[in-house]
Amino acid sequence: MEVITVKSTAKAQLIDITEEVARKVKGVESGVCFLYVPHTTAGIIINEGADPAVAQDILDLYQRLVPYDYPYRHLEGNSPAHVKASFTGPGLSVLIENGRLMLGTWQRIFLAEYDGPRTRKVYLKVLEG
Amino acid sequence: MEVITVKSTAKAQLIDITEEVARKVKGVESGVCFLYVPHTTAGIIINEGADPAVAQDILDLYQRLVPYDYPYRHLEGNSPAHVKASFTGPGLSVLIENGRLMLGTWQRIFLAEYDGPRTRKVYLKVLEG
Amino acid sequence: MEVITVKSTAKAQLIDITEEVARKVKGVESGVCFLYVPHTTAGIIINEGADPAVAQDILDLYQRLVPYDYPYRHLEGNSPAHVKASFTGPGLSVLIENGRLMLGTWQRIFLAEYDGPRTRKVYLKVLEG
Repeated sequence: MEVITVKSTAKAQLIDITEEVARKVKGVESGVCFLYVPHTTAGIIINEGADPAVAQDILDLYQRLVPYDYPYRHLEGNSPAHVKASFTGPGLSVLIENGRLMLGTWQRIFLAEYDGPRTRKVYLKVLEG
Repeated sequence: MEVITVKSTAKAQLIDITEEVARKVKGVESGVCFLYVPHTTAGIIINEGADPAVAQDILDLYQRLVPYDYPYRHLEGNSPAHVKASFTGPGLSVLIENGRLMLGTWQRIFLAEYDGPRTRKVYLKVLEG
Repeated sequence: MEVITVKSTAKAQLIDITEEVARKVKGVESGVCFLYVPHTTAGIIINEGADPAVAQDILDLYQRLVPYDYPYRHLEGNSPAHVKASFTGPGLSVLIENGRLMLGTWQRIFLAEYDGPRTRKVYLKVLEG
C-alpha cells in the first residue's frame, strides 16, 4: 500500500492528484488501482479537469444542497462536510491496462476536501490481474 | 479488459446493461467485476429495473436537485451533467460467485446518461479469486 | 463470499457493521475487502461513528433533499428510498494491510437503511494481494 499526502488550502476544494496516482502505478501492466481516503469529511471524485470551472460548479451545487446554515445536531460545525463526504464516498477504483490508468480523455482524479484546510492522506493499492 | 458500447437516445436516461455485463463475465466462477465509464457526464447506477418508473423518479429528483437553470461558471452548458456524474461516480464493482453476478432480486445495472444522446463506453474487468 | 445479516428497526437508519466486517476479514494479511448490498433501497456508507449525531444529520439532509411527499411515478411509495440508494451506491471497498482494515480513526462502516424496518444482507468478499 502506498500513501499520497495532499494539503488543501481552502474549506471546500477539489485537488487534482492524477499525476501522483499515475506515478505510483508506474510499472503495473494490468490490474485495478484502489484509492481510499481514511477521512470522514473528504473523498475521491473523478470528473473533468480541463476547465477548473467544472470543479467550482460541483462544489457550488454541493453547498447549495447541503447548506452551512442548518439546524445540524453534530456540534463540531462540520456536519455539512460529513454529509458531502457521505455522497462522495471514501474511495474509487480505476482500471490499469497496457501499463496506464484507463481514465477517459477529460477525466482527472481529485481529492475532494469539504472541511479544509487540512493535510489529507490517500491510500493507494494495486491488485494486478 | 472488455468494452461495452451503449448508445443513449435522450438527454438523461438510465440504460439497462445487465445482460451485456452478464455475458462478458460468463465462465468466471468467482471474483469481482469492475465497471468503469471513462466519461465525465455519465456513470454507473445499480437500482430497481422491474418498474421503469423507478429510473424516471431517480432522474426527476436529480434534475430537481441539480437544475438546468442555474448560474453555472462552466460555459459548455453541461455543468448539471458533471455535477450528477460526480454524485453517481464513474464505477462500481459487483461480486461473482458460483459463476454468476451476485445481484439482488431487483437489482439491474444501468449506464446513467446525463448529457445525451451520445455513444458511451463501459470498461469491464474481472479479477478472479 | 461471506454474508452479514443486519436487521434495521427504523425507516431510515445507519447501522454500524464495522465489527462484523473486521471479524470476517480476520486472518487476511493484505488485500481488498468488497462490501455489497443486494438491495435497491439500502447501501453502504463509511463516515464518522463516534458521535451518533453525524448519522442523524446525514439522514436528515437526505430526507430534506429527497422528500417523502413528492409526485413520484413509482407507486410502491418507496421511491425516496430508491433515490437515496442510488446516491449511496450498493457497495464499497476497504483496503486491508498488516492484517487490519485500513479505516481512518473516525471511520465506521454503516449499512444505510432507507426503507426499513427490514432484514438486510451485506455480501463480503476479499481479494488478497
